[in-house]
Amino acid sequence: MVRRVAVIGAGVGGLASIKCCLDEGLEPTCFERSEDIGGLWRYTDSMDGGRISVYRSVITNTSKEMSCFSDFPCPEDFPSYLPHGLLLEYFRMYSRHFDLLRHIRFRTTVLSVRKRPDFTTSGQWEVVTETNSIREVHVFDAVMVCTGHFQEPYLPLAFFPGIDTHFKGQYLHSQEYKDAEAFRGKRVLVVGIGNTGGDLSVELSRVAAKVFLSARSNTWVISRVSDHGFPFDMVNTTRFNHFLDWFLPSAITKRIRFRKFNSRFNHANYGLASTKSSNFKIIVNEELPFCLLSGTVVLKPKVRKFTESSAVFEDGTTEENIDVVLFATGYSFSFAFLEESVRSLFDDNRSLYKRIFPPQLEKPTLAIIGLVQLTGSVMVGTEMQARWVTGIFAGWNKLPPTSKMMADVLKKKPPVKRCIMLLHLGCSGGRLSFISYTDEIASCAGIKPSVLRLLLTDPRLALAIFFGPCTPYQYRLVGRGKWSGARDAILTQWQRTLKPLRTRVVDDSSDGSDGWCWLCLLALPVALTGFWEEPFWDRLVCTGLAFLPRLLELPP
Amino acid sequence: MVRRVAVIGAGVGGLASIKCCLDEGLEPTCFERSEDIGGLWRYTDSMDGGRISVYRSVITNTSKEMSCFSDFPCPEDFPSYLPHGLLLEYFRMYSRHFDLLRHIRFRTTVLSVRKRPDFTTSGQWEVVTETNSIREVHVFDAVMVCTGHFQEPYLPLAFFPGIDTHFKGQYLHSQEYKDAEAFRGKRVLVVGIGNTGGDLSVELSRVAAKVFLSARSNTWVISRVSDHGFPFDMVNTTRFNHFLDWFLPSAITKRIRFRKFNSRFNHANYGLASTKSSNFKIIVNEELPFCLLSGTVVLKPKVRKFTESSAVFEDGTTEENIDVVLFATGYSFSFAFLEESVRSLFDDNRSLYKRIFPPQLEKPTLAIIGLVQLTGSVMVGTEMQARWVTGIFAGWNKLPPTSKMMADVLKKKPPVKRCIMLLHLGCSGGRLSFISYTDEIASCAGIKPSVLRLLLTDPRLALAIFFGPCTPYQYRLVGRGKWSGARDAILTQWQRTLKPLRTRVVDDSSDGSDGWCWLCLLALPVALTGFWEEPFWDRLVCTGLAFLPRLLELPP
Repeated sequence: MVRRVAVIGAGVGGLASIKCCLDEGLEPTCFERSEDIGGLWRYTDSMDGGRISVYRSVITNTSKEMSCFSDFPCPEDFPSYLPHGLLLEYFRMYSRHFDLLRHIRFRTTVLSVRKRPDFTTSGQWEVVTETNSIREVHVFDAVMVCTGHFQEPYLPLAFFPGIDTHFKGQYLHSQEYKDAEAFRGKRVLVVGIGNTGGDLSVELSRVAAKVFLSARSNTWVISRVSDHGFPFDMVNTTRFNHFLDWFLPSAITKRIRFRKFNSRFNHANYGLASTKSSNFKIIVNEELPFCLLSGTVVLKPKVRKFTESSAVFEDGTTEENIDVVLFATGYSFSFAFLEESVRSLFDDNRSLYKRIFPPQLEKPTLAIIGLVQLTGSVMVGTEMQARWVTGIFAGWNKLPPTSKMMADVLKKKPPVKRCIMLLHLGCSGGRLSFISYTDEIASCAGIKPSVLRLLLTDPRLALAIFFGPCTPYQYRLVGRGKWSGARDAILTQWQRTLKPLRTRVVDDSSDGSDGWCWLCLLALPVALTGFWEEPFWDRLVCTGLAFLPRLLELPP
Repeated sequence: MVRRVAVIGAGVGGLASIKCCLDEGLEPTCFERSEDIGGLWRYTDSMDGGRISVYRSVITNTSKEMSCFSDFPCPEDFPSYLPHGLLLEYFRMYSRHFDLLRHIRFRTTVLSVRKRPDFTTSGQWEVVTETNSIREVHVFDAVMVCTGHFQEPYLPLAFFPGIDTHFKGQYLHSQEYKDAEAFRGKRVLVVGIGNTGGDLSVELSRVAAKVFLSARSNTWVISRVSDHGFPFDMVNTTRFNHFLDWFLPSAITKRIRFRKFNSRFNHANYGLASTKSSNFKIIVNEELPFCLLSGTVVLKPKVRKFTESSAVFEDGTTEENIDVVLFATGYSFSFAFLEESVRSLFDDNRSLYKRIFPPQLEKPTLAIIGLVQLTGSVMVGTEMQARWVTGIFAGWNKLPPTSKMMADVLKKKPPVKRCIMLLHLGCSGGRLSFISYTDEIASCAGIKPSVLRLLLTDPRLALAIFFGPCTPYQYRLVGRGKWSGARDAILTQWQRTLKPLRTRVVDDSSDGSDGWCWLCLLALPVALTGFWEEPFWDRLVCTGLAFLPRLLELPP
């Protein structure tokens, strides 16, 4: 029976884990090596002790309604997308509200986590920590590792011949980047077009003499400001779209999606992505298209090699006088503190059962939290993991036998190699579908809402859940940890989205949705005959019906 | 008979004027008070001698194909939207190519322009200049005033009670703004939401502690990256759309336009504009919507008054601890060097015949160039004016009698007061339709192409002219100044648009247009029945048919 739980790290995963431990009556002790909460989201100008933090200008990629803790909505006057300072403020509010801080031991580094000799029967761990050079040995019934995905900068120099032998300029990893000032007037080559590579290119373009962005993969660039100005994830991450993804042939959904992406700007014309590609990733960026159109960022193919001062690209072109190469090549993870016999059980997160549990362990008392990349908010996925894990620790949920877990892992693990590379480079090929994953964990934890049952008992809520954004409150409607505020939180989510924009009021805010909605209802039979091409479908599916829940939920 | 022409100012209007004078065999002498060409587009960090220049980050609002001189296309590897440095470089290329510099006297200020005693018969002017403290008196047969629209910062303090009596913070006009660094960590209120107010708010949001943007008017915010990623003006400023504007009832075109603007984001939800308004303006900004959605810029209504440290707004709200107020309230013009009897003939540019000629002058030997605001590129309008004016000076074109000109002016002059205010605040209410104006001047100059005639003789070109972007080359197809490269320039304009993006090539660039085009052709009969609502019309008109010329012009 688990009672005392070690939580390693006080970032978003650590905070959620402490909270979930408390909810289940467990006794969490969180070890945080820095002096404050927030993990990488706590921005600092300097890199104190190698701690990784975001860059100064970062703003969340997922909206507040889609990213918050499931029983603690963001304040309604917070904007939809949070600059890092506000997100940290939200974490502080959460910590205060659930009184989490007293369970955290700051400035405490975890040196080792080892199985106790009687692990096979007790499942206990020996955790050695260091605080101000003083070592302590603790025994815990379970361990939740919440050190996250972003631990070690991934700097694949071997793929770039000449960078460390011939190139005389400076090169660095994006981890070292804080703001653009150091690059003023320089000719910069950014390698890697993930979210970070895109953001930094745009930011550098304002001060650098020239910015080249080298992209190896097909990349679709979407805007957080989606149809009619609503947050992208709120409009697109819906159970209805998820259903269509499952229901329609993947060739069609892919085509619909690509057409939608291309309607913002033609990605092939911009050299970013081809509709014919099977491997691709999706990044979020509002400014990159205009930077490309105004030439302030110049897209380049993959680098073939570096010479003394220039980069030679795969298409044979050369850019001379490169001053700095900035590798936005992502991060890898390591768990140096875990004993080797445990660490060797998972070479990457896909060896973990549901991306959480090493399936071969004799006792399920070690959980890796937040080591997952989703097409939506990782924060929500992280909290979901913590809820299920603490439910297991508390004895409410059970894991299947090792053999079943192993079979599940093998079934879901793709034929590796290339994927590891993609994962390192932050490719969405490595990302799991947000709704698929959270629903899967929610099912395990017995907290997944049934839309069909709700349709009979609370049709208004059912429609909001099915057609509206898949907000985390949906996982607080039933089961353990049910929250009485969940229904209301769902039905007022659009209000909280619009509220921060109400700083200047004009009088026709309902305009735009009615017309479209009527048009779509009118067009439904036509669309269903298949007479129209997919763009119409797309329009209908992605934009039109997204208004249905809004009509239901918004105040008249 | 005019021979010697004084050109005042060597900005875009001055350069075009010199070039047109030379084309007509006239003898231009250009006086430029600074040491270089480019006018406000020549960026300098400091304000030398009160010279107004753009801010550091400025990028053109109109695309290179829609903004260039009509017989001198921008280099094909220039990006579609030009940062000021590249635009200046283009001006230098133009000056070199047509050997304009030798007609310019730099560091020479025009002190006065007066009618000669025999003006009634000779039409001559006495121009007094000063170069290095040495005065000179010149006699010219005609004068082209090319000092432009942006001369005096317009700082309407009287409309902001308390700003100069109570407010203890700093206030300044956007003219003094160069970059954001001076505002780091400050709470800034930007007053006025023109293109400048929008740009500066976005830029300040990256360094300031808080940015408020006070807007008095309904403002539609469009992106330069238009449908499918093509430049906004190339997709929208077409003779076909111009025809629809004329053909359809204005209530419908307005609704179509508003719906299109709102499809990017709902302007009412963002507090920017209501579809019910009759007065509105349009600004260009890619980032403002996301800044509002992420709260890094906060929109506010009109300021009612200032107190010591705060601003009180019309809705009764107050923002405290304002450190700086930045007035982006536009510019006004003055022609202090013109003799009073002439200057008094026009209180604003709408008193000028075709916005160029003071109609009451006994001889048409004074032209004001570039004193016009258009919905498209002012550069193109300016060159068009210069061509017509030099045609008149050279005797090829004639002005109607004073009475007719006066009647025309009175007919077009709206019932003032409010409009002057709007004009000062950079409102598009003061802007003239680009195609209407350039066509009108082109008609006067006898250089307007006839689409119907071309349809018989060169149908491919006719379709490109009618459905494609109204690029300035269209005015070099017929009449005086006809350019043999014009046809080719028109048929290759999309190539030059796409060329600078070809720095990384993927293989399906034709995708996206075919499907839409077929869909639109398919949908045409349906749309014409009026069965569908306007959004469909809009989609058809603004996006769909825009592909027709592209299909015709793009290489297969």
